[in-house]
Amino acid sequence: MAASPAWDRIWLGGHLATMSEGGPPFGEIQNGAIASKDGDISWVGEERDLPGSPEELAEDVVDVDGKWITPGLVDCHTHLVFGGDRSGEFEARLQGATYEEIAQKGGGIRTTMAATREASEEDLFQTASGRLRRLLAEGVTTVEIKSGYGMETDTELRMLRAARRLAEKHPVDVQTTFLGAHVLPPEFEGRRGAYVDLLCGEMIPKAVQANLADAVDAFCDVIAFTPDECEKVLALGKELGLPVRLHADQLSDQGGASLAAKLGARSADHLERTSIRGVDAMAAAGTVAVLLPGAFYFLRDNQPPPVASFREAGVPMAVGTDLNPGSSPLNSLLTALNLACVLFGLTPEESLKGATAHGARALGLQRTRGSLEKGKMADLAIWEIGHPRELSYWVGKNPCAGVVKDGESTLFISV
Amino acid sequence: MAASPAWDRIWLGGHLATMSEGGPPFGEIQNGAIASKDGDISWVGEERDLPGSPEELAEDVVDVDGKWITPGLVDCHTHLVFGGDRSGEFEARLQGATYEEIAQKGGGIRTTMAATREASEEDLFQTASGRLRRLLAEGVTTVEIKSGYGMETDTELRMLRAARRLAEKHPVDVQTTFLGAHVLPPEFEGRRGAYVDLLCGEMIPKAVQANLADAVDAFCDVIAFTPDECEKVLALGKELGLPVRLHADQLSDQGGASLAAKLGARSADHLERTSIRGVDAMAAAGTVAVLLPGAFYFLRDNQPPPVASFREAGVPMAVGTDLNPGSSPLNSLLTALNLACVLFGLTPEESLKGATAHGARALGLQRTRGSLEKGKMADLAIWEIGHPRELSYWVGKNPCAGVVKDGESTLFISV
Repeated sequence: MAASPAWDRIWLGGHLATMSEGGPPFGEIQNGAIASKDGDISWVGEERDLPGSPEELAEDVVDVDGKWITPGLVDCHTHLVFGGDRSGEFEARLQGATYEEIAQKGGGIRTTMAATREASEEDLFQTASGRLRRLLAEGVTTVEIKSGYGMETDTELRMLRAARRLAEKHPVDVQTTFLGAHVLPPEFEGRRGAYVDLLCGEMIPKAVQANLADAVDAFCDVIAFTPDECEKVLALGKELGLPVRLHADQLSDQGGASLAAKLGARSADHLERTSIRGVDAMAAAGTVAVLLPGAFYFLRDNQPPPVASFREAGVPMAVGTDLNPGSSPLNSLLTALNLACVLFGLTPEESLKGATAHGARALGLQRTRGSLEKGKMADLAIWEIGHPRELSYWVGKNPCAGVVKDGESTLFISV
Repeated sequence: MAASPAWDRIWLGGHLATMSEGGPPFGEIQNGAIASKDGDISWVGEERDLPGSPEELAEDVVDVDGKWITPGLVDCHTHLVFGGDRSGEFEARLQGATYEEIAQKGGGIRTTMAATREASEEDLFQTASGRLRRLLAEGVTTVEIKSGYGMETDTELRMLRAARRLAEKHPVDVQTTFLGAHVLPPEFEGRRGAYVDLLCGEMIPKAVQANLADAVDAFCDVIAFTPDECEKVLALGKELGLPVRLHADQLSDQGGASLAAKLGARSADHLERTSIRGVDAMAAAGTVAVLLPGAFYFLRDNQPPPVASFREAGVPMAVGTDLNPGSSPLNSLLTALNLACVLFGLTPEESLKGATAHGARALGLQRTRGSLEKGKMADLAIWEIGHPRELSYWVGKNPCAGVVKDGESTLFISV
């Protein structure tokens, strides 16, 4: 009786963009093959170097018929869970209303806060599921989801529970981030310190105790929290054992990048107004720069983040959707990759690295995700393209032909 | 025996954005119903005003369960049929190559010309089919397709035959446009007049004779053809009975809008550099302004078309994808609507009108398409949205839940 095959599955007949460091652009392997065993990658290389016939090596052999295989994509910065939408505000602005007029009518983030506070966990789960499925259909296998529209204990925890449930019910890994320090809720106006006390005294400890948060984030800007307030929040997160990250220098340079570096944050995000000092601090600390061109686009910002400086200093750049109802109703990571190229000048390879290897690094998952290497998780996206640069070239043409999570096919798309 | 129902099908249980003139925004009808007979719309109104019970009125009753119904979308400006792609050039530019360096390597439109000349009609049909299906999945039921990458008789006709075949094989109406006057092909360098003679003496007559062209277009700009050359080409088109349109004032103001108006063109397209004189001429002539924000975005242009002037002068504004491999690899009409809002300041209603009523007008199809009115074709798009303004708010979240062409359901989408 023949020995049972060593591997569960082999994908062959196509090409790989492994996104591994130090190799050719995109980590390209023409006529490559990749195998999985127990959900992990057990072999990667040229098909002709397979140590035997595919049928003897694996239970299943999948011929991808000339397609390309990349690591499953990582969307490392989203606000995927929220109540309502802000299309009314989008329309009002285009009809001539000013930000002030919208704010006076209780608009802006307060609209989303109110709708999210009113939403049940089931509502939040259901509306987020639709958005999540759109991301998955584009090859995303890992997604980060933040709280931050409750700004009160119950709603913040409910958002995080909805995020955990999204992971249970869909073939995706979800990393949750507590972002109670998003903006000051209106009931704390004039009492900033009391809200920070609530964050540190109740909300973060409860989120940690219930194992609902994988990281802690804060929004450091003039319209949000001061560097000192953010430091207090993130320091507590660290004390409780969580990694931290920071919304930094989006609307003004508050020294957010330097603060993130000082705290050993995994990432600093947005960074449109980061100074060279901030870039250097991030480089020294190994902090990932998470670029969010969706918000830059929707807000009609005109100062892109210092990409050339990040590149020169060797700061890894990730790219996320920032999917949120106010400043980035962008439900497509591939479109974020295109925006990063067109608006920020990333190359297609940098852009794709931003949604694979560097996106994984921003989440602290670089050992298990983000490139096609032996021992990493067998999370794959299969693409009907002629070259991986096409992933950031087309807009609105999703060439994803299949997704594999933990070695199992989860999605095949025909349209 | 009961009389057979008067209508074939009724859609009810949702809301209508009829996009009819003179009514409420979006031509909104809450709790509306719409019926078809022999492929045309036989009734539109509030559901409670139906002249009897739905089951007696129609063979089929479709409950859209709270969704919204709009006219099928019209993409009135595409270069959907082409060989190859230009992702390599996209990448080279982002890696620092200049336009000149790319042009010296035979890049730019010549890359597409060469690939298109080499492609068989079957190749052109197959590659365009994938792109067309993406448009259809977003509710598009009418699409315009231009020739213009052959710039020699055989290839121009082959592109148009592929476009005709696309219409035969998909549930969509295709309007073909002859655009032999796209740019000067390299073999005619220094002999501009000879190419215009070829266009007028051979290419256009042959296209007309074979019934392959529904309109004639020309690209009036410094890198393309002079106003005099364009006038010669379009005048011949008119003489042979075809409506005309013009790529006008995109890169420089050549008086293209005024020329289009003078020739009674159905549309002038792009218009980033159109003067107020051009706007007034278009208003007087009833020429539609076709806005193409995809090219504006990809080219990082910074001068938007004079939208406020068009609005004030009452020039109808249409919005198209301009789908092409060089300046607008944009395979999503919904994304074009969002770009028109964010980059050009259209309101969501103007934007949607641009892809319905005004898009139809740009193609001369306003009597039969572009709004939900009795007697027009029963081409519908059904959307999972809370309000039609959402169609230009989200990016990358296709909320299309179904498409109806000539009264028949053609597509239901679950992802």
